[in-house]
Amino acid sequence: MKGNLLIGQSGGPTAVINNSLAGIIQEAMDHEAIGGIYGMVHAIKGLLDQELVDLRQESPRTLELLRATPASALGTVRYKVTDADYERILDLFIKYDIRYFFYIGGNDSMDTTHKVAKLAASRGYEMHAIGVPKTVDNDLAVTDHCPGFGSAARFVATAIRDTGFDTWAMGESSPIKLMEIMGRNAGWLTAATALAKDEPDDPPHLIYMPERGITMDQVVSDVLKVYDRLGYCVVACSEGMQDPDGHPIGEGSGDVDAFGHVAKGGVVEAVEAAIRKTSDVKTRHDKPGYLQRSFAALQSSVDREEAYQVGRRAVRAAMEGRTDVMVTIDRADGPGYEISYGLAPLDKIANVEHVLPETYINAEGNGVTDAFITYARPLIGEPLPPYARLAMHPVPKRA
Amino acid sequence: MKGNLLIGQSGGPTAVINNSLAGIIQEAMDHEAIGGIYGMVHAIKGLLDQELVDLRQESPRTLELLRATPASALGTVRYKVTDADYERILDLFIKYDIRYFFYIGGNDSMDTTHKVAKLAASRGYEMHAIGVPKTVDNDLAVTDHCPGFGSAARFVATAIRDTGFDTWAMGESSPIKLMEIMGRNAGWLTAATALAKDEPDDPPHLIYMPERGITMDQVVSDVLKVYDRLGYCVVACSEGMQDPDGHPIGEGSGDVDAFGHVAKGGVVEAVEAAIRKTSDVKTRHDKPGYLQRSFAALQSSVDREEAYQVGRRAVRAAMEGRTDVMVTIDRADGPGYEISYGLAPLDKIANVEHVLPETYINAEGNGVTDAFITYARPLIGEPLPPYARLAMHPVPKRA
Repeated sequence: MKGNLLIGQSGGPTAVINNSLAGIIQEAMDHEAIGGIYGMVHAIKGLLDQELVDLRQESPRTLELLRATPASALGTVRYKVTDADYERILDLFIKYDIRYFFYIGGNDSMDTTHKVAKLAASRGYEMHAIGVPKTVDNDLAVTDHCPGFGSAARFVATAIRDTGFDTWAMGESSPIKLMEIMGRNAGWLTAATALAKDEPDDPPHLIYMPERGITMDQVVSDVLKVYDRLGYCVVACSEGMQDPDGHPIGEGSGDVDAFGHVAKGGVVEAVEAAIRKTSDVKTRHDKPGYLQRSFAALQSSVDREEAYQVGRRAVRAAMEGRTDVMVTIDRADGPGYEISYGLAPLDKIANVEHVLPETYINAEGNGVTDAFITYARPLIGEPLPPYARLAMHPVPKRA
Repeated sequence: MKGNLLIGQSGGPTAVINNSLAGIIQEAMDHEAIGGIYGMVHAIKGLLDQELVDLRQESPRTLELLRATPASALGTVRYKVTDADYERILDLFIKYDIRYFFYIGGNDSMDTTHKVAKLAASRGYEMHAIGVPKTVDNDLAVTDHCPGFGSAARFVATAIRDTGFDTWAMGESSPIKLMEIMGRNAGWLTAATALAKDEPDDPPHLIYMPERGITMDQVVSDVLKVYDRLGYCVVACSEGMQDPDGHPIGEGSGDVDAFGHVAKGGVVEAVEAAIRKTSDVKTRHDKPGYLQRSFAALQSSVDREEAYQVGRRAVRAAMEGRTDVMVTIDRADGPGYEISYGLAPLDKIANVEHVLPETYINAEGNGVTDAFITYARPLIGEPLPPYARLAMHPVPKRA
């Protein structure tokens, strides 16, 4: 059916989310049924405020540059859509003759997309609402993985590898390094720091994910054991680290976002304080924060292409008459990395949080399994560049 | 004169310090007077413990890979050399027949190199002690700039640009972003975040350097003014930010290193707390910490080559009979970027801290001048990659 198309980018940005935007726009231009190609400025808030932009007027060069540009070029928002909003959203869809709706986002955005699709159906308004997956947290159900994750994984693996070389170099001067990694409830990104390792004793030596509660005593004991053995210790701490009773480690900033999610923080400071109570070894930390999701120089080539393709596939699915679905990435069994794109009903995805399975966490709860490495390795694209390690042939001591 | 050569990497690592190491080793191999090419493991501590390694046994591939490898491959140390140590150091030099000594480091390391050179002269031991400049802080005197700075500058400019795009995208959800930048007393690296700007209103909107004291009231007023005008505000805060009386902003971790330098910190948290007292606008921060000095993926091509060349030039200077000097980078006057390498007496450099001149800081104390940009731009290598900005042609509102 003929009509206009509307795109929104919702939730936290990623290093490749603009690839999905470019994919949708470029694919849409190939379909005659599609009239206007509109973007919401700052996601659903832009629709409610009728701040829409005409994406057909963007130049081909801008569309190409989008693929290398981090964050959400249309702007995004953290805003919990109310029941009253949904009626108004549908009224606006009708007013602007929106028949194709693409929402690029995570769990909450898939819920929004699902509710829009259901309401349109219940009111007999024909439209095609398609979810386009995006999240550095990699916590969407059904899909093998989420666009955005691979690039964030490449960043955190690179960051912990480089700060790991720095920490080794510093030796006794500051041998313990903690890095705080994003992921409130899901440890995927923290686990991905393991991709920094070439050898078993390479950093990160310890990885703490929210899925497995751990006592602070155990953490301190783990850290000092590695330090005693290797002379240094590099630790990846999820911002969502928990004790065995499910209480967060660290006091957190106490901020609450529009969805009622509590912003956590202070995890690495809490671990440092505990180490210092037991030992006088020097500790340091890095908190790369929002760089984890926005660092375009470390886009994963695989992630970038997949983010683009889920955009294109979303438009094709709509043109084939589908609605109330999200594009998924499905991985073939077998030794190589082969994927295809599929579709899954939004009600299987909306508000479901897909956390790390137990099979990806080691028995001690302080590292990942080979199965996780096999899963995650292809997602970061090319292997990390090789680094030199000196052979360090000793010069005989002279008396 | 015939003899052995000894290299140490001292102080904080950088993303390109191993280029200086590779340059020294590769140049040394071309000179027949040089016998053993030895490295100190963890700098002067490695000498005192007689932990030396034979760098002639490293493979050509390792030497090439060193150029892309961050941090100090020989290991480094923060250790204040005592007067008693110096006598022992010279005894060890004599014992190992060290006639060529290259110390890669900052102010403190130049002091060490100078004292070694002086003591050798006073005891009539012929040797050539040459300083090789290295510091992300860019605070060495005489030289136009320091190897290590350009790559750290490229990292912080990239980081604040990308997190700036992220902050714009988040809009009202979290419009204030603070980033804490290394540099206890010198604002060079914080100033370098300005290289992220393509347009005057691009992030970073405010830049606070330790050289110009500022009241917290002024900072809060600056931030809210930018926010009111642009809808968001991205701020680069030096870890060494000070009030007009020279008191540090933020409480700091209180850690003191071996040189008596107090490790500062908590600056961005202090600024956030002050903003929240005045306004309920949401603030966030990033603390990339040690990534600033170790992020090899963002080596500046210019910095990398210069770090290599100062290593080679140091060896040539020694072969020409020089001692008690540091290799400098001298910039030619004129519109292009042209440098040559020189030598400066170590006593002009040891323990001198070269801070940002007043001409590089704007009148308000919250940004840099064009003169600084002209100075710093060539040091980060290739221009930062272009990013897309949507033209955002509005779709007419429908009644």
